[in-house]
Amino acid sequence: MTKDGKFLLGFDLGGTKLMAAVFNENFQIVARTKRKTRADKDADVVFERLARTIKDACEEAGTKPQKLAGIGLGVPGPVDSDSGIIIRTPNLGFRNFPLKDKIENAFQVPAIVDNDVNLGTYGELHFGAARGRSQVIGIFPGTGIGGGLVLDGKLFRGATGGAGEVGHMIIQVGGPLCGCGQRGCIEAIASKTALAKDAVALVSRGKAPAIAAEAGADISKIKSGVLGQAFKEGDSDIRGLVLHAAEYLGISMANLVNILNPEIIVLGGGLVEAMPKEFVEAAANSMRRHAMTFPVAKVEVVAAELGDDATVYGAAKLIAEELAKNNEK
Amino acid sequence: MTKDGKFLLGFDLGGTKLMAAVFNENFQIVARTKRKTRADKDADVVFERLARTIKDACEEAGTKPQKLAGIGLGVPGPVDSDSGIIIRTPNLGFRNFPLKDKIENAFQVPAIVDNDVNLGTYGELHFGAARGRSQVIGIFPGTGIGGGLVLDGKLFRGATGGAGEVGHMIIQVGGPLCGCGQRGCIEAIASKTALAKDAVALVSRGKAPAIAAEAGADISKIKSGVLGQAFKEGDSDIRGLVLHAAEYLGISMANLVNILNPEIIVLGGGLVEAMPKEFVEAAANSMRRHAMTFPVAKVEVVAAELGDDATVYGAAKLIAEELAKNNEK
Repeated sequence: MTKDGKFLLGFDLGGTKLMAAVFNENFQIVARTKRKTRADKDADVVFERLARTIKDACEEAGTKPQKLAGIGLGVPGPVDSDSGIIIRTPNLGFRNFPLKDKIENAFQVPAIVDNDVNLGTYGELHFGAARGRSQVIGIFPGTGIGGGLVLDGKLFRGATGGAGEVGHMIIQVGGPLCGCGQRGCIEAIASKTALAKDAVALVSRGKAPAIAAEAGADISKIKSGVLGQAFKEGDSDIRGLVLHAAEYLGISMANLVNILNPEIIVLGGGLVEAMPKEFVEAAANSMRRHAMTFPVAKVEVVAAELGDDATVYGAAKLIAEELAKNNEK
Repeated sequence: MTKDGKFLLGFDLGGTKLMAAVFNENFQIVARTKRKTRADKDADVVFERLARTIKDACEEAGTKPQKLAGIGLGVPGPVDSDSGIIIRTPNLGFRNFPLKDKIENAFQVPAIVDNDVNLGTYGELHFGAARGRSQVIGIFPGTGIGGGLVLDGKLFRGATGGAGEVGHMIIQVGGPLCGCGQRGCIEAIASKTALAKDAVALVSRGKAPAIAAEAGADISKIKSGVLGQAFKEGDSDIRGLVLHAAEYLGISMANLVNILNPEIIVLGGGLVEAMPKEFVEAAANSMRRHAMTFPVAKVEVVAAELGDDATVYGAAKLIAEELAKNNEK
């Protein structure tokens, strides 16, 4: 709720689920609605579902979309943040989709659109693990590995809105095949997907009994939680896989430290949430061993605090700032 | 020369040579002096030589250091740019050295100190190959591989002045040993030093006759110019080495594109200057093959234009901006 008594809405357009959260003036979530994305449908159908999810969340908060102060939306792909056009979404059917205009037309309230991982990092900056910092790198290993950059206190988007794709940093020329077609990207080594590939290979050789019991050798059933559970139960093969991933993730973090000299790296996403603290510690130790002494000296590595809510928090904060900026004009 | 008729001085404190350049109001160099650094001496001796080089350049320009509008200095290592303290220089004896204060005390004129490669990139931004851009990455392969970042139009220094160390990006886990102690840094693969290591191995096996004739198997004699000459003469082994370096340099550029989504990458430094255009083209082609389609789509790759003068240009520009800022206050 802003000074004139209106609520803000933060939206996370994910590959599997849609989430709308209504925020009050203290950036507390007062209502929240989720719905399946139906990524198999085309963009207009997904947009209808998105609009309905916004209406439902508003209803739960006792208001209407038209009465919101503004709507911030995070989407899984590069965005032209000035126009609010989704340039494309690798896992969804959006191509040059004018989401900002569509939302503003539908509800007659101001909207902003940005990349979901950028907004997640921004959420952690303002309400989570990176509060008070100005040089922040967010890395979110899950199905893939997303990244977001806050540089000199501001979200950094690059020349065309495509900055922060840390998951496709090649750290091992000729290494494992990545979903992007390259080899040796950190995403191909340390994402949940990469671990699942190795885990099914273990299962097929009669190893990793905890995984075998839970998921068999079906790669689609190997979720982060299954891997985390096997790790916690002490399965030595799975421990080996996960700590190898953390070691390599740490090398990619070292590269980012040498390039960007951040204050803090926030690790989040499904894989990090499913693992014990040991995962973050192993990645941080590897980072310290592989980075240059000077830029790494003061870098903190922490787990994200906002979980699935990071993007809606960041989205609400960014639209609030946009509204404040427009009021000044 | 600024509006009040005073000159600016740009200084490049290099590992082998010192260079001072006096600039007029149109940022043209009106005088220039060089002197050997004598990196074997301690910091105070090098500082004396630096001060003398400044005096000599001023004399050549018909002025005195005390009459300059300001002095900008580039140094080979991380700097606290607010205090102008050199934190350390890997190849020189400076440790927490208050260069800004020492210069201001010695000459009673305002000074700024920044990293030399940052300033070189800044020089290319304002007077060289990156004019008019706001997202610029400078990469300078020579003895090592230095880097500088201009993000959203400003020099980016990171949390503690250590940003831009692109040379120590690990792209090949377990790869060749780097001077920094790690393995697989791009500096260990694509710097002049890395090429010289492979070239002497070739010579010792009776190959690379042009290198053998010029330098024998003495690694210290294999300069960028020697390698460039052998490349231009068509020595197939040397061509192989150099194009391999360009290929891997392109992979590190692809990583930077995915992380920072720049408009332009400027390649400079001794190795690039010594090679024909084919080197930059090979690196750019590799970058396009290894980067993500979206962030790389509009990236230009160009050779630096200012050569050895890039740092003094950037230093003069930065002190000019600092003076203008202080005048506004």
